[in-house]
Amino acid sequence: MTLYGYWRSSAAYRVRIALNLKGIEVDHKSVHLVKDGGQQHHADYISLNPQQLVPALVLDDGEVLTQSMAMLEYLEDTHPEIPLLPSDTLAKAKVRALANAIACDVHPLNNLRVLQYLKGEAGLDDAAKDAWYQHWIVTGFNAYEAMLADTAGEFSFGDSPTLADICLVPQVYNARRFKIPLDNYPHIVRIVENCNRLAAFAEAAPENQADAV
Amino acid sequence: MTLYGYWRSSAAYRVRIALNLKGIEVDHKSVHLVKDGGQQHHADYISLNPQQLVPALVLDDGEVLTQSMAMLEYLEDTHPEIPLLPSDTLAKAKVRALANAIACDVHPLNNLRVLQYLKGEAGLDDAAKDAWYQHWIVTGFNAYEAMLADTAGEFSFGDSPTLADICLVPQVYNARRFKIPLDNYPHIVRIVENCNRLAAFAEAAPENQADAV
Repeated sequence: MTLYGYWRSSAAYRVRIALNLKGIEVDHKSVHLVKDGGQQHHADYISLNPQQLVPALVLDDGEVLTQSMAMLEYLEDTHPEIPLLPSDTLAKAKVRALANAIACDVHPLNNLRVLQYLKGEAGLDDAAKDAWYQHWIVTGFNAYEAMLADTAGEFSFGDSPTLADICLVPQVYNARRFKIPLDNYPHIVRIVENCNRLAAFAEAAPENQADAV
Repeated sequence: MTLYGYWRSSAAYRVRIALNLKGIEVDHKSVHLVKDGGQQHHADYISLNPQQLVPALVLDDGEVLTQSMAMLEYLEDTHPEIPLLPSDTLAKAKVRALANAIACDVHPLNNLRVLQYLKGEAGLDDAAKDAWYQHWIVTGFNAYEAMLADTAGEFSFGDSPTLADICLVPQVYNARRFKIPLDNYPHIVRIVENCNRLAAFAEAAPENQADAV
Protein backbone atom coordinates (compact mmCIF):
# COMPACT_ATOMS: atom_id res chain seq x y z
CA MET A 1 0.00 0.00 0.00
CA THR A 2 1.09 3.59 -0.59
CA LEU A 3 -0.04 6.46 1.61
CA TYR A 4 -0.06 9.82 -0.11
CA GLY A 5 0.21 12.33 2.70
CA TYR A 6 1.92 15.40 4.05
CA TRP A 7 3.80 15.68 7.31
CA ARG A 8 1.57 18.40 8.74
CA SER A 9 -1.75 17.01 7.52
CA SER A 10 -3.80 15.95 10.55
CA ALA A 11 -5.81 13.51 8.47
CA ALA A 12 -2.64 11.80 7.17
CA TYR A 13 -1.27 11.81 10.74
CA ARG A 14 -4.35 9.84 11.85
CA VAL A 15 -3.77 7.18 9.24
CA ARG A 16 -0.07 6.95 10.08
CA ILE A 17 -0.93 6.28 13.73
CA ALA A 18 -3.41 3.54 12.82
CA LEU A 19 -0.96 1.87 10.44
CA ASN A 20 1.70 1.92 13.17
CA LEU A 21 -0.64 0.58 15.85
CA LYS A 22 -1.67 -2.27 13.58
CA GLY A 23 1.88 -2.93 12.43
CA ILE A 24 1.13 -2.38 8.75
CA GLU A 25 4.04 -1.22 6.59
CA VAL A 26 3.30 1.11 3.68
CA ASP A 27 5.23 3.27 1.27
CA HIS A 28 4.87 6.99 1.85
CA LYS A 29 4.62 9.61 -0.87
CA SER A 30 4.60 13.28 0.00
CA VAL A 31 2.08 15.67 -1.53
CA HIS A 32 3.28 19.15 -0.64
CA LEU A 33 0.21 21.17 0.29
CA VAL A 34 1.82 24.58 -0.28
CA LYS A 35 4.68 24.24 -2.79
CA ASP A 36 3.93 24.56 -6.52
CA GLY A 37 0.51 26.08 -5.74
CA GLY A 38 -0.31 22.95 -3.73
CA GLN A 39 0.57 19.61 -5.26
CA GLN A 40 -2.85 18.27 -4.18
CA HIS A 41 -4.30 20.42 -6.98
CA HIS A 42 -2.12 18.86 -9.69
CA ALA A 43 -3.77 16.63 -12.28
CA ASP A 44 -1.89 13.48 -11.29
CA TYR A 45 -3.10 13.76 -7.71
CA ILE A 46 -6.66 14.74 -8.69
CA SER A 47 -6.84 11.48 -10.61
CA LEU A 48 -6.25 9.73 -7.25
CA ASN A 49 -8.48 11.98 -5.18
CA PRO A 50 -10.98 14.35 -6.83
CA GLN A 51 -11.36 16.10 -3.48
CA GLN A 52 -7.79 17.41 -3.81
CA LEU A 53 -7.14 16.62 -0.16
CA VAL A 54 -4.65 14.31 1.50
CA PRO A 55 -4.41 11.52 2.40
CA ALA A 56 -5.08 8.96 -0.32
CA LEU A 57 -4.31 5.29 0.27
CA VAL A 58 -3.50 3.23 -2.80
CA LEU A 59 -4.00 -0.48 -2.22
CA ASP A 60 -1.77 -3.14 -3.73
CA ASP A 61 -4.34 -3.85 -6.45
CA GLY A 62 -4.43 -0.16 -7.44
CA GLU A 63 -7.75 0.66 -5.79
CA VAL A 64 -7.70 4.07 -4.11
CA LEU A 65 -9.22 4.96 -0.77
CA THR A 66 -9.91 8.55 0.23
CA GLN A 67 -11.17 10.14 3.45
CA SER A 68 -9.11 9.35 6.53
CA MET A 69 -12.05 8.13 8.63
CA ALA A 70 -13.07 5.69 5.90
CA MET A 71 -9.44 4.48 5.75
CA LEU A 72 -9.35 3.92 9.51
CA GLU A 73 -12.54 1.85 9.31
CA TYR A 74 -11.10 -0.07 6.34
CA LEU A 75 -7.93 -0.87 8.28
CA GLU A 76 -10.13 -2.00 11.17
CA ASP A 77 -12.22 -4.20 8.84
CA THR A 78 -9.20 -5.77 7.16
CA HIS A 79 -6.74 -5.93 10.09
CA PRO A 80 -8.88 -6.62 13.16
CA GLU A 81 -6.12 -8.40 15.16
CA ILE A 82 -5.17 -5.18 16.96
CA PRO A 83 -8.59 -3.54 17.36
CA LEU A 84 -9.04 0.22 17.39
CA LEU A 85 -12.77 -0.04 18.07
CA PRO A 86 -14.39 -1.95 20.94
CA SER A 87 -16.48 -4.99 19.97
CA ASP A 88 -19.62 -3.93 21.85
CA THR A 89 -21.98 -1.92 19.61
CA LEU A 90 -22.75 0.77 22.20
CA ALA A 91 -19.08 1.21 23.07
CA LYS A 92 -18.27 1.39 19.37
CA ALA A 93 -20.83 4.19 18.91
CA LYS A 94 -19.27 6.12 21.79
CA VAL A 95 -15.77 5.84 20.32
CA ARG A 96 -17.02 6.91 16.91
CA ALA A 97 -18.83 9.87 18.51
CA LEU A 98 -15.61 11.01 20.19
CA ALA A 99 -13.65 10.57 16.97
CA ASN A 100 -16.23 12.50 14.95
CA ALA A 101 -16.43 15.28 17.53
CA ILE A 102 -12.90 16.05 16.30
CA ALA A 103 -13.06 14.81 12.71
CA CYS A 104 -16.38 16.46 11.84
CA ASP A 105 -16.63 19.40 14.23
CA VAL A 106 -13.11 20.73 14.81
CA HIS A 107 -10.65 19.71 12.12
CA PRO A 108 -12.71 20.63 9.00
CA LEU A 109 -13.06 24.19 10.28
CA ASN A 110 -9.36 24.71 10.84
CA ASN A 111 -7.62 22.98 7.98
CA LEU A 112 -5.39 24.67 5.46
CA ARG A 113 -7.91 25.32 2.69
CA VAL A 114 -10.31 26.97 5.14
CA LEU A 115 -7.65 29.24 6.63
CA GLN A 116 -6.55 30.16 3.10
CA TYR A 117 -10.14 31.09 2.19
CA LEU A 118 -10.61 33.17 5.34
CA LYS A 119 -7.45 35.19 4.68
CA GLY A 120 -8.00 35.33 0.94
CA GLU A 121 -11.57 35.54 -0.34
CA ALA A 122 -13.13 36.45 3.02
CA GLY A 123 -10.49 39.12 3.77
CA LEU A 124 -9.94 38.33 7.45
CA ASP A 125 -6.75 39.65 9.05
CA ASP A 126 -4.39 37.43 11.03
CA ALA A 127 -5.96 38.28 14.38
CA ALA A 128 -9.46 37.39 13.16
CA LYS A 129 -8.18 34.18 11.56
CA ASP A 130 -6.40 33.18 14.78
CA ALA A 131 -9.55 33.95 16.80
CA TRP A 132 -11.52 31.66 14.47
CA TYR A 133 -8.94 28.90 14.91
CA GLN A 134 -8.98 29.19 18.69
CA HIS A 135 -12.79 29.39 18.84
CA TRP A 136 -13.34 25.99 17.22
CA ILE A 137 -10.57 24.32 19.19
CA VAL A 138 -11.98 25.64 22.47
CA THR A 139 -15.57 24.77 21.54
CA GLY A 140 -14.54 21.28 20.47
CA PHE A 141 -12.20 20.55 23.37
CA ASN A 142 -14.71 21.84 25.96
CA ALA A 143 -17.16 19.24 24.67
CA TYR A 144 -14.55 16.47 24.29
CA GLU A 145 -13.30 17.02 27.84
CA ALA A 146 -16.90 16.72 29.10
CA MET A 147 -17.52 13.57 27.02
CA LEU A 148 -14.41 11.97 28.56
CA ALA A 149 -16.12 11.96 31.99
CA ASP A 150 -18.33 9.18 30.61
CA THR A 151 -15.71 7.23 28.67
CA ALA A 152 -12.06 7.78 29.66
CA GLY A 153 -9.57 5.48 31.27
CA GLU A 154 -5.91 5.65 30.32
CA PHE A 155 -7.16 6.61 26.86
CA SER A 156 -10.24 8.40 25.51
CA PHE A 157 -12.31 5.24 25.78
CA GLY A 158 -11.12 2.80 28.39
CA ASP A 159 -7.54 1.62 28.67
CA SER A 160 -6.41 1.03 25.11
CA PRO A 161 -6.06 3.37 22.14
CA THR A 162 -9.01 3.74 19.78
CA LEU A 163 -10.05 5.82 16.78
CA ALA A 164 -10.90 8.58 19.27
CA ASP A 165 -7.28 8.96 20.37
CA ILE A 166 -6.15 8.73 16.76
CA CYS A 167 -8.23 11.83 16.00
CA LEU A 168 -7.44 13.63 19.25
CA VAL A 169 -3.64 13.50 19.14
CA PRO A 170 -3.21 15.35 15.80
CA GLN A 171 -5.75 17.96 16.88
CA VAL A 172 -3.85 18.62 20.12
CA TYR A 173 -0.63 18.81 18.09
CA ASN A 174 -2.27 21.57 16.04
CA ALA A 175 -3.59 23.34 19.12
CA ARG A 176 -0.08 23.48 20.55
CA ARG A 177 1.35 24.64 17.25
CA PHE A 178 -1.09 27.56 17.33
CA LYS A 179 -0.33 28.13 21.04
CA ILE A 180 -3.88 27.50 22.30
CA PRO A 181 -3.81 27.18 26.12
CA LEU A 182 -4.80 23.67 27.23
CA ASP A 183 -5.06 24.33 30.99
CA ASN A 184 -8.80 23.67 30.98
CA TYR A 185 -8.36 20.19 29.53
CA PRO A 186 -6.57 18.01 32.10
CA HIS A 187 -8.07 14.76 30.79
CA ILE A 188 -7.22 15.56 27.17
CA VAL A 189 -3.64 16.50 28.11
CA ARG A 190 -3.21 13.37 30.23
CA ILE A 191 -4.57 11.07 27.51
CA VAL A 192 -2.43 12.63 24.80
CA GLU A 193 0.64 12.11 27.01
CA ASN A 194 -0.31 8.44 27.38
CA CYS A 195 -0.68 8.16 23.62
CA ASN A 196 2.61 9.84 22.82
CA ARG A 197 4.47 7.41 25.10
CA LEU A 198 3.60 4.72 22.56
CA ALA A 199 5.99 4.40 19.64
CA ALA A 200 3.06 4.08 17.20
CA PHE A 201 1.93 7.60 18.04
CA ALA A 202 5.38 9.15 18.46
CA GLU A 203 6.70 7.82 15.15
CA ALA A 204 3.64 9.16 13.34
CA ALA A 205 4.25 12.72 14.54
CA PRO A 206 4.77 15.34 11.83
CA GLU A 207 8.38 16.14 12.74
CA ASN A 208 9.34 12.48 12.33
CA GLN A 209 8.22 12.27 8.70
CA ALA A 210 10.66 12.22 5.80
CA ASP A 211 9.06 15.30 4.20
CA ALA A 212 9.19 17.42 7.37
CA VAL A 213 11.15 20.63 6.99
CA MET B 1 -35.60 5.35 21.40
CA THR B 2 -36.02 9.11 21.32
CA LEU B 3 -34.41 11.28 18.67
CA TYR B 4 -33.73 14.83 19.76
CA GLY B 5 -33.57 16.81 16.53
CA TYR B 6 -34.69 19.85 14.63
CA TRP B 7 -36.57 19.90 11.35
CA ARG B 8 -33.88 21.86 9.49
CA SER B 9 -30.85 20.08 10.99
CA SER B 10 -29.08 18.13 8.23
CA ALA B 11 -27.53 15.78 10.76
CA ALA B 12 -30.93 14.96 12.28
CA TYR B 13 -32.36 14.59 8.75
CA ARG B 14 -29.71 11.89 8.05
CA VAL B 15 -30.73 9.91 11.11
CA ARG B 16 -34.44 10.23 10.25
CA ILE B 17 -33.77 8.78 6.79
CA ALA B 18 -31.82 5.83 8.22
CA LEU B 19 -34.50 5.09 10.82
CA ASN B 20 -37.16 5.15 8.09
CA LEU B 21 -35.15 2.94 5.73
CA LYS B 22 -34.62 0.41 8.50
CA GLY B 23 -38.23 0.64 9.68
CA ILE B 24 -37.33 1.69 13.22
CA GLU B 25 -39.92 3.75 15.08
CA VAL B 26 -38.71 6.38 17.53
CA ASP B 27 -40.18 9.25 19.48
CA HIS B 28 -39.13 12.67 18.25
CA LYS B 29 -38.36 15.64 20.47
CA SER B 30 -37.65 19.03 18.95
CA VAL B 31 -34.70 21.14 20.07
CA HIS B 32 -35.26 24.56 18.54
CA LEU B 33 -31.88 25.78 17.35
CA VAL B 34 -32.80 29.48 17.24
CA LYS B 35 -35.65 30.12 19.72
CA ASP B 36 -34.77 30.96 23.35
CA GLY B 37 -31.15 31.66 22.38
CA GLY B 38 -30.95 28.12 20.97
CA GLN B 39 -32.43 25.32 23.07
CA GLN B 40 -29.34 23.20 22.30
CA HIS B 41 -27.46 25.52 24.68
CA HIS B 42 -29.85 24.91 27.61
CA ALA B 43 -28.60 22.91 30.58
CA ASP B 44 -31.06 20.04 30.13
CA TYR B 45 -29.86 19.45 26.59
CA ILE B 46 -26.17 19.90 27.43
CA SER B 47 -26.58 17.04 29.91
CA LEU B 48 -27.54 14.86 26.91
CA ASN B 49 -24.96 16.26 24.50
CA PRO B 50 -22.04 18.38 25.74
CA GLN B 51 -21.39 19.39 22.13
CA GLN B 52 -24.64 21.39 22.16
CA LEU B 53 -25.49 20.08 18.71
CA VAL B 54 -28.39 18.02 17.43
CA PRO B 55 -29.17 15.21 17.06
CA ALA B 56 -28.95 13.09 20.19
CA LEU B 57 -30.41 9.60 20.27
CA VAL B 58 -31.55 8.31 23.64
CA LEU B 59 -31.75 4.54 23.74
CA ASP B 60 -34.42 2.65 25.68
CA ASP B 61 -31.98 1.96 28.53
CA GLY B 62 -31.18 5.68 28.85
CA GLU B 63 -27.78 5.57 27.11
CA VAL B 64 -27.24 8.57 24.86
CA LEU B 65 -25.63 8.54 21.42
CA THR B 66 -24.29 11.70 19.81
CA GLN B 67 -22.78 12.41 16.37
CA SER B 68 -25.03 11.49 13.45
CA MET B 69 -22.40 9.38 11.65
CA ALA B 70 -21.83 7.33 14.80
CA MET B 71 -25.60 6.87 15.10
CA LEU B 72 -25.86 5.67 11.50
CA GLU B 73 -23.11 3.11 12.12
CA TYR B 74 -24.84 2.07 15.37
CA LEU B 75 -28.13 1.53 13.55
CA GLU B 76 -26.24 -0.50 10.95
CA ASP B 77 -24.55 -2.58 13.67
CA THR B 78 -27.79 -3.23 15.56
CA HIS B 79 -30.28 -3.46 12.66
CA PRO B 80 -28.37 -5.07 9.80
CA GLU B 81 -31.44 -6.63 8.11
CA ILE B 82 -31.82 -3.67 5.74
CA PRO B 83 -28.16 -2.79 5.12
CA LEU B 84 -27.01 0.75 4.41
CA LEU B 85 -23.39 -0.34 3.85
CA PRO B 86 -22.21 -2.99 1.41
CA SER B 87 -20.71 -6.15 2.95
CA ASP B 88 -17.45 -6.04 0.96
CA THR B 89 -14.73 -4.13 2.83
CA LEU B 90 -13.50 -2.13 -0.17
CA ALA B 91 -17.05 -1.18 -1.17
CA LYS B 92 -17.74 -0.21 2.42
CA ALA B 93 -14.70 2.10 2.41
CA LYS B 94 -15.92 3.76 -0.79
CA VAL B 95 -19.38 4.39 0.64
CA ARG B 96 -17.89 5.80 3.83
CA ALA B 97 -15.60 8.04 1.76
CA LEU B 98 -18.57 9.44 -0.16
CA ALA B 99 -20.52 9.96 3.05
CA ASN B 100 -17.59 11.70 4.73
CA ALA B 101 -16.92 13.88 1.69
CA ILE B 102 -20.21 15.51 2.71
CA ALA B 103 -20.23 14.91 6.47
CA CYS B 104 -16.63 16.06 7.09
CA ASP B 105 -15.89 18.41 4.22
CA VAL B 106 -19.11 20.26 3.35
CA HIS B 107 -21.66 20.21 6.13
CA PRO B 108 -19.41 21.27 9.06
CA LEU B 109 -18.44 24.42 7.18
CA ASN B 110 -21.99 25.51 6.48
CA ASN B 111 -23.97 24.68 9.56
CA LEU B 112 -25.81 27.19 11.70
CA ARG B 113 -23.15 27.83 14.35
CA VAL B 114 -20.51 28.54 11.69
CA LEU B 115 -22.74 30.96 9.78
CA GLN B 116 -23.58 32.69 13.07
CA TYR B 117 -19.86 33.07 13.86
CA LEU B 118 -19.06 34.43 10.39
CA LYS B 119 -21.79 37.10 10.62
CA GLY B 120 -21.15 37.80 14.30
CA GLU B 121 -17.58 37.54 15.58
CA ALA B 122 -15.94 37.55 12.13
CA GLY B 123 -18.06 40.47 10.89
CA LEU B 124 -18.81 39.17 7.38
CA ASP B 125 -21.73 40.75 5.55
CA ASP B 126 -24.50 38.68 3.95
CA ALA B 127 -22.85 38.62 0.52
CA ALA B 128 -19.55 37.32 1.94
CA LYS B 129 -21.37 34.75 4.06
CA ASP B 130 -23.37 33.53 1.03
CA ALA B 131 -20.17 33.33 -1.05
CA TRP B 132 -18.61 31.18 1.69
CA TYR B 133 -21.67 28.91 1.71
CA GLN B 134 -21.63 28.50 -2.05
CA HIS B 135 -17.86 27.96 -2.18
CA TRP B 136 -17.94 24.87 0.04
CA ILE B 137 -21.01 23.41 -1.64
CA VAL B 138 -19.43 23.85 -5.10
CA THR B 139 -16.04 22.50 -3.96
CA GLY B 140 -17.70 19.50 -2.31
CA PHE B 141 -20.18 18.73 -5.07
CA ASN B 142 -17.52 19.03 -7.80
CA ALA B 143 -15.59 16.28 -6.03
CA TYR B 144 -18.66 14.17 -5.20
CA GLU B 145 -19.85 14.30 -8.80
CA ALA B 146 -16.39 13.10 -9.93
CA MET B 147 -16.34 10.33 -7.31
CA LEU B 148 -19.70 9.08 -8.59
CA ALA B 149 -18.10 8.15 -11.92
CA ASP B 150 -16.42 5.31 -10.02
CA THR B 151 -19.34 4.25 -7.83
CA ALA B 152 -22.82 5.29 -8.96
CA GLY B 153 -25.74 3.25 -10.18
CA GLU B 154 -29.28 4.28 -9.32
CA PHE B 155 -27.83 5.57 -6.07
CA SER B 156 -24.43 6.97 -5.03
CA PHE B 157 -22.99 3.49 -4.69
CA GLY B 158 -24.68 0.89 -6.83
CA ASP B 159 -28.40 0.36 -6.94
CA SER B 160 -29.57 0.63 -3.37
CA PRO B 161 -29.42 3.48 -0.87
CA THR B 162 -26.41 3.72 1.44
CA LEU B 163 -24.96 6.07 4.03
CA ALA B 164 -23.64 8.13 1.11
CA ASP B 165 -27.14 8.98 -0.11
CA ILE B 166 -28.24 9.62 3.46
CA CYS B 167 -25.60 12.36 3.68
CA LEU B 168 -26.09 13.66 0.15
CA VAL B 169 -29.84 14.28 0.24
CA PRO B 170 -29.85 16.73 3.18
CA GLN B 171 -26.88 18.59 1.67
CA VAL B 172 -28.70 19.00 -1.65
CA TYR B 173 -31.77 20.13 0.27
CA ASN B 174 -29.62 22.87 1.81
CA ALA B 175 -28.04 23.78 -1.50
CA ARG B 176 -31.50 24.31 -2.99
CA ARG B 177 -32.63 26.29 0.02
CA PHE B 178 -29.68 28.62 -0.54
CA LYS B 179 -30.39 28.68 -4.31
CA ILE B 180 -27.04 27.19 -5.38
CA PRO B 181 -27.24 26.20 -9.08
CA LEU B 182 -26.94 22.43 -9.53
CA ASP B 183 -26.62 22.34 -13.34
CA ASN B 184 -23.07 21.02 -13.15
CA TYR B 185 -24.13 17.99 -11.10
CA PRO B 186 -26.35 15.77 -13.27
CA HIS B 187 -25.47 12.58 -11.38
CA ILE B 188 -26.08 14.15 -7.98
CA VAL B 189 -29.43 15.56 -9.12
CA ARG B 190 -30.50 12.23 -10.65
CA ILE B 191 -29.54 10.25 -7.55
CA VAL B 192 -31.29 12.64 -5.19
CA GLU B 193 -34.45 12.32 -7.33
CA ASN B 194 -34.21 8.55 -7.02
CA CYS B 195 -33.83 8.86 -3.26
CA ASN B 196 -36.73 11.24 -2.83
CA ARG B 197 -39.04 8.86 -4.66
CA LEU B 198 -38.65 6.54 -1.68
CA ALA B 199 -41.02 7.20 1.22
CA ALA B 200 -38.16 6.77 3.71
CA PHE B 201 -36.41 9.82 2.28
CA ALA B 202 -39.52 11.88 1.53
CA GLU B 203 -41.01 11.43 4.99
CA ALA B 204 -37.71 12.49 6.59
CA ALA B 205 -37.67 15.83 4.75
CA PRO B 206 -37.63 18.94 6.95
CA GLU B 207 -41.04 20.22 5.85
CA ASN B 208 -42.67 16.95 6.90
CA GLN B 209 -41.55 17.18 10.52
CA ALA B 210 -43.89 18.11 13.34
CA ASP B 211 -41.74 21.08 14.37
CA ALA B 212 -41.52 22.59 10.86
CA VAL B 213 -42.85 26.10 10.63
